[in-house]
Amino acid sequence: MKNNSFKEIAGQLKEAGSIVIFPHILMDGDALGSAAALCCALRSMGKDAVIAVEDKVPDYLQFLDKGYCIYDLEKYMNPDVSICVDCGELKRFPERAELFKSGKTKICVDHHGTSPGIGDYNYIDGKAAATGELIYDLLLAMECDIDVEMANAIYAAITTDTGNFQYSNTTRRSHEIVMELYDLGLDSYGTSVSLYENESFEKMKLQSAAINDSEVFAEGKAIIAEISLDMLEQYGARMEDTEGIVGMMRSIKGVDIAILLKEKEPGNIKASLRAKHGDVSKIAVAFKGGGHEKAAGCTIYDSMAVARELIMKAVSEELCRE
Amino acid sequence: MKNNSFKEIAGQLKEAGSIVIFPHILMDGDALGSAAALCCALRSMGKDAVIAVEDKVPDYLQFLDKGYCIYDLEKYMNPDVSICVDCGELKRFPERAELFKSGKTKICVDHHGTSPGIGDYNYIDGKAAATGELIYDLLLAMECDIDVEMANAIYAAITTDTGNFQYSNTTRRSHEIVMELYDLGLDSYGTSVSLYENESFEKMKLQSAAINDSEVFAEGKAIIAEISLDMLEQYGARMEDTEGIVGMMRSIKGVDIAILLKEKEPGNIKASLRAKHGDVSKIAVAFKGGGHEKAAGCTIYDSMAVARELIMKAVSEELCRE
Repeated sequence: MKNNSFKEIAGQLKEAGSIVIFPHILMDGDALGSAAALCCALRSMGKDAVIAVEDKVPDYLQFLDKGYCIYDLEKYMNPDVSICVDCGELKRFPERAELFKSGKTKICVDHHGTSPGIGDYNYIDGKAAATGELIYDLLLAMECDIDVEMANAIYAAITTDTGNFQYSNTTRRSHEIVMELYDLGLDSYGTSVSLYENESFEKMKLQSAAINDSEVFAEGKAIIAEISLDMLEQYGARMEDTEGIVGMMRSIKGVDIAILLKEKEPGNIKASLRAKHGDVSKIAVAFKGGGHEKAAGCTIYDSMAVARELIMKAVSEELCRE
Repeated sequence: MKNNSFKEIAGQLKEAGSIVIFPHILMDGDALGSAAALCCALRSMGKDAVIAVEDKVPDYLQFLDKGYCIYDLEKYMNPDVSICVDCGELKRFPERAELFKSGKTKICVDHHGTSPGIGDYNYIDGKAAATGELIYDLLLAMECDIDVEMANAIYAAITTDTGNFQYSNTTRRSHEIVMELYDLGLDSYGTSVSLYENESFEKMKLQSAAINDSEVFAEGKAIIAEISLDMLEQYGARMEDTEGIVGMMRSIKGVDIAILLKEKEPGNIKASLRAKHGDVSKIAVAFKGGGHEKAAGCTIYDSMAVARELIMKAVSEELCRE
């Protein structure tokens, strides 16, 4: 599939009156940051633009939603343009699929290289560190005056998806865009505080407990921890509070693979896998999951004890093979 | 005091045959990254350059020392040039003060605005996010071919001193330099893994224990935790493993001030203070300590219990005043 140009996509948006934007379910900083920057830009150009969502905006991202997010999908059916950002498959916004399809023109802007391109117009670039980078280019093509709010939202998208510019996806372009955002008034510190310095005490206690009980195995090359429903209750935490734990585990010296097992419900264990150097997507795929080389996941429908045993065995075998 | 130009400083370095570089005691990523980039550059130009140190290079920074660091100070007395980086006072390298003073020409490059300028040539810029940024400009002025090793060291300096580009000191220039470093071969991921993904399991368990036992007070606006000598023994950790804990505590929602009390020895309690919005340097100064607005410290010569009470009272009063 060949990409359309940002100029073509900008042309479609400029001609439209009503636009509905679709971030993916379980939205992250890149999904909502990209959607918010685009929504703000479109409204500044006099368009009737909204972000359609089907799940709650997480606490740490709520500062990005300046009255953009709508849940009342029926009211917004048949927009001039439907545009999905940071995702490119209907199953990534299942309850909104009908609304997306009702758009007269459908557009997809995504940085997941595996996206099939479900739009009439598509821009998919697997090399971009964040969809926020592509939205920045789109805003330039729209000849929109990028203001501080858009700059902060694009920054939020890039900093979260690059792990503060640390992950292997970070590029020269990521820094170049941020540099340009400063010229547009970027408040990088304020945005970082909103994103990263609003952790709940419950979350931090849950993290501490998980790490304290974690087990190193495979000669120190792997580490595994568990979050049970009982633990959530004990610490007054929510499953979304597990965000970040597996990354912390991976950062331990000598660890190549970190695994966090999360009890979604009894007999339904979600495994999150992270690799420092190797490839964990193969392990996830073996359990009918998927993901990227360095970040993948799968679900095991069994008890925590069995899930733990199965995953530890698979990880040990993978590490022996290397 | 007026700064010399980088051109003048570069001229002094170019004329020199032997150069000794001085990072500060308890070196951090900016001190050693700056020193390593400069040492590598000088050696590439055929100079006899070393980094004089008086304390151990921390584990997470050892990848930066490619045979540059020397402890045998006597052997390097009377160099053509002594240059201190990321510090500008003799008390910041007390055991090396004589060696520094023995240099025929003394230079100081620092980003601590309060540095008095102890060199014959000085470049002190309190607005630079890291001394690494100034070293980059100095290398350009030296017309040195910046290679991947220098690029990685400068990146290490900038990313550590800006807290991965999150702290309030981060500027447009920080990102611009990193962007240019990519053109010189920067391995940002490899450097980040070396810096941040080599944590000891003992350190992580110590962090978890401290956070688990921490106490929120002043109506949720402050949080305090302790690291005792007993805890270090229990977890097999070292005092340097406390790095990062107070920053994690500050990141809790609603918390304005975080305090970590560290028992250096019985009756000698070091308090590290971090502010999200307010100013903690005033509190530290009241206990004869010092530091910056958002990161300060002091020592209380009393028991942990008394130190805790005194600091909690001072912090509560400060927060009431705001």
